[in-house]
Formats: sequence, structure tokens, C-alpha cells
Amino acid sequence: MNEDQILNRIRRRALLPRRCHLVKGIGDDCAIYRPPGSPEDLVFTTDLLLEDVHFRRTTHSPADIGWKAAARGLSDIAAMGAEPRFCLLSLAVSEDVDQGWIDRFFRGFFALIRSHRTPLAGGDLARAAKIACDILICGALPRGTALLRSGARPGDSIYVSGVLGGSALGLASLRGRALRRHLRPQPRLALGRFLREKLGATAAIDLSDGLSTDLHRLCRESRVCAVLDAPIPVFPGAALEQALHGGEDYELLFTVPPQTQVPARFHGLPLTRIGAIRRGARGKVTFFGLPAPPLGYDHFR
Amino acid sequence: MNEDQILNRIRRRALLPRRCHLVKGIGDDCAIYRPPGSPEDLVFTTDLLLEDVHFRRTTHSPADIGWKAAARGLSDIAAMGAEPRFCLLSLAVSEDVDQGWIDRFFRGFFALIRSHRTPLAGGDLARAAKIACDILICGALPRGTALLRSGARPGDSIYVSGVLGGSALGLASLRGRALRRHLRPQPRLALGRFLREKLGATAAIDLSDGLSTDLHRLCRESRVCAVLDAPIPVFPGAALEQALHGGEDYELLFTVPPQTQVPARFHGLPLTRIGAIRRGARGKVTFFGLPAPPLGYDHFR
Repeated sequence: MNEDQILNRIRRRALLPRRCHLVKGIGDDCAIYRPPGSPEDLVFTTDLLLEDVHFRRTTHSPADIGWKAAARGLSDIAAMGAEPRFCLLSLAVSEDVDQGWIDRFFRGFFALIRSHRTPLAGGDLARAAKIACDILICGALPRGTALLRSGARPGDSIYVSGVLGGSALGLASLRGRALRRHLRPQPRLALGRFLREKLGATAAIDLSDGLSTDLHRLCRESRVCAVLDAPIPVFPGAALEQALHGGEDYELLFTVPPQTQVPARFHGLPLTRIGAIRRGARGKVTFFGLPAPPLGYDHFR
Repeated sequence: MNEDQILNRIRRRALLPRRCHLVKGIGDDCAIYRPPGSPEDLVFTTDLLLEDVHFRRTTHSPADIGWKAAARGLSDIAAMGAEPRFCLLSLAVSEDVDQGWIDRFFRGFFALIRSHRTPLAGGDLARAAKIACDILICGALPRGTALLRSGARPGDSIYVSGVLGGSALGLASLRGRALRRHLRPQPRLALGRFLREKLGATAAIDLSDGLSTDLHRLCRESRVCAVLDAPIPVFPGAALEQALHGGEDYELLFTVPPQTQVPARFHGLPLTRIGAIRRGARGKVTFFGLPAPPLGYDHFR
């Protein structure tokens, strides 16, 4: 079984009860909770960051690890169009890690969460054989306005922010601007809010596991298929495969109704039309007429 | 540095900004968030459960691991006097784990969260060298009514629920009712709500790391000291050291004003007075006149 099949199996057993305050459970970038009496919905995401799975200590400094732990969670909040409100961090450190390492980890972690006004409200701390982080981020937005994976409609245009493949190139080459992209991803929080508030985006997802996999997920949740019929914006020097299937770019993939005027840039970040949503086999993606199966990152393949 | 010293160092750097919706950050069993316009506060806790740190696969079945992951989080919710609303689970499984293992894990996990009406709303899934779980639980209670560690006042009586040391005995002996206590702890959610709603408890904490350590934490947050001057209720067969310093009993330790009439039992669970809160050296605990330093579980000692 692959990752999505395992998740679907858990999801079938985790059906939400009829009377609860959850608006959305498993199946999107975040879960959505509606506090009684509040004009706001709260969105929640957790993301693991594990040594020798998501990072190696030979490539990532302690501050890089702290930064990335925060970036992964904040990127999910961005994909919902929400504003982060607080975070919790569970951290396991290995025996050989000292107080200096922990201080440097938190320097990177706080640098990113503070720049997005996200206080650390708690968490857990343990010793283990390898370093492990799990970040929980809570975000907020006006009731009923969250950008979902499930909102794309046939005819919608598909857009992506930034350029893709930089993180995969950085991981492969271990140098230059591409490595910086890999080590210090920038969650697109301001763009997410713009998509929700101003642009009227119909669906969004963050590109954590690769364009082919994440677009497949968006299409599956929206019960549509996608045709990619325009050049994908590729990070200078990256291969098309890295842009299509490489993960950890943390850009936003989103859909808008066909008439929507999308600016070419948002605060300097390119927004590029790469295709369109179509009626058809649920979750299927084609790239200039050829099938583009989900070949992004999968822990279980 | 020990665990509490590392946590205090993080806490000093995680000061909450003046204008935010957090009522309580690092330093209690849960963080507290106040949604604008809502009559309820939300409480949040995360707990790691790591292979070969918190459990071994030779003693814990997959269902035991799933149960305990949920129990650790629910116990923190109980200590605040809150009602659980939903949970998120981050789960890393090792290469040798198959779909059957994952199914059995979730059988134990769902058995406990369903019995407390706590839907699973999302999470994360990964492969790693060892099994790792991180549970996030969100609970709710009427605004401003959470039971805190910091509410104990000089003169208050100190009570504990149940009998202590059973989990430590079970881990040491690997048999009998004590082992069952170790493998399948029962979070005291109904008791926590009773303490908040009916009994007017002034402070509470759950016993996850051992009485000596957790009472020390409660006293430190309340800026008081504690004298234990009555017999501690001990699990049949457990040693006094196991009851004083053994962790994972997941009973509730709480304080009430001196005049409070505390019933001898709550739904069959004994409630025992074990001492009193005094003015004095912050966090100090004495046991029949002798110092009882925090010798419970500490990942960093």
C-alpha cells in the first residue's frame, strides 16, 4: 500500500460523528474546527520532521532544522488562506545533542515563527535515538472561508506560485541558491490570504510532496481531473522531473474560475498558469497529453 | 541541564506577545486559546510516545501503543477539567511494520478516543527507523474556568485519585493487574470535570512523570511548597518509591480549599488526602518531614 491508500483506510475509520464542531477532518491541508459563537474558524495541521527521513545532520544545521519544522506547518496554514495564531512543538533530541545545539535549533525555529507572529504555546520534550520534531500550528480565518482542496471546478485555471524544482535540485547538488531553497523554504502566508480574500481562489494546496502528487490529491478531493498544457516554471538549473515530482518547494498550487484576472506577480513572486481543471477520471493528471501519475514523495512506496 | 531547566530556557524565549488570543502558554498541562466571541476556551496538549523510550515492542502490543498514545494526551485534558473535542495524530512507523500492525495500532487508538467521543481530525504519516507517535488533543471548557497548576494556595489540601505505583510495578514485573495498569492507563476525564464543576479545585496536574516530580511542578507554578503528611495510597504490591517517583499512573493530583468536603470515592475511584500546601521555598516538597526531591522520570537527567 502507498501513503495515500493507508491514509484512506484510516480516514474511513475516522468518520466524524454527526454532532461535533469539526467542519473538516482528514483529507485537507488542515482540519477545521468551528468554535461555538465565534465569527472565526480555526484550522489545525501537524507535520513530522525526522532525522534521516526528512533531513540529515550533514546537510541541515540545527537552525535549518528548527526553521524547516516551522516552515512545514506554516505552509499548510498558508494553503488554507489562514493567519497563524499559535504553535506547539514536540521535540525529541538524541543523546549527543547538547544545550548549544538546542539553542541553535530554537534560533532557527523562532526566527521563522516570530516573522509570522506565531507564538510558541507549548509542546513536549524527550530524548531519543534520533532527532524528531512534530509541529502543530493553529490558524484562524473568517467562518466558512477556508480554501479547500475540494473546491476546484471543471473549467477552472490551475496556477502555481514561484518556480519549482529548486528544493530537489538543492538536495541533489548541495550548493548555491538551490540548497538555500531546500534548507530555508518560505511559507507563502501572505499569498494564501490574498488568494482567499481578493482573488476568489476555488481550491489550494501547498507543494510539499511534489506537483504531480499534490495536484493529484487536489483533483481527487475535488472529484475532477487536470490537464497541464503550459510550461511549468522551473527553478534555474533544475530538471523538469525535479519540478514535476520533487517535493519541498512549499509553493502554493491553486485554482481560480476561468475569467479571473490573476496578476503575473504577487509581491515579486511569479504566479503562473500551468493548466486547467476538467471533468473526467477523478484525480487523473495529464502533462501535454501524456499521463503524469503521482511520482512525488511517498514514504510507503 | 535537566528537562525542567531546558524547558524553562525555552519558555523564557517564548514569551507571549501582548496582543494575542493565548491565555496560557508554556508551563501547564495544556496551552489555552480564547476564540474571539466564543463562551468557551480551548485547551491544547501534545505528547510524544517513542519506541525504546516510552515503550518497547516486546512489552506493548500495537493496540497498547495506540491506546497509550491517546491516553497520554487525554490525561492532560482531564487535568485541565476540559472535555476533549478532537485530536490529530502524527505517526511514524518502521520498515518492518505492515498494514496489519497499523490496523491493530488504530484498533487500540480508536477504542480509547471513541469512548471519550474524540474524533480523529487529521495528522501526519511517515516511515522512520523506529515507531514514533505524537498526539495533539484539543479540549474545551467554559471561558476562564480551566484548572491550572498555578492555582494552589497556602492552606489548601492536596489530594490524589486512585492508587499510585501500579504502572511502575507493572513495568518492573511485566505481569498481572499492574502490567495492565502500565499498558492501558485510564485518563480521568470525568473526575477532571467533577473537580472543576462541582468541587471547586484550586489546581490540578496529571501524574505522568511521578508524584514527586509532578507535585514539585504544581508547587513551582503556584509559588508554594507542599508537605506530604498522610499515607500515600499505594497499588497492591508496589513499593513506596514506585508510588512516589514512578511515572505513568495518569491519576490526577489536585488541591482544594481546606474546608472543602471531598468524597472518599468518585464513581468507585478513591480520592485520598495526602498533604497540604504551605507558604515557603517555591516547589519544595517534604514527605513526613524529610525532603522529597523530584526523582520522577526525566529524559535529561
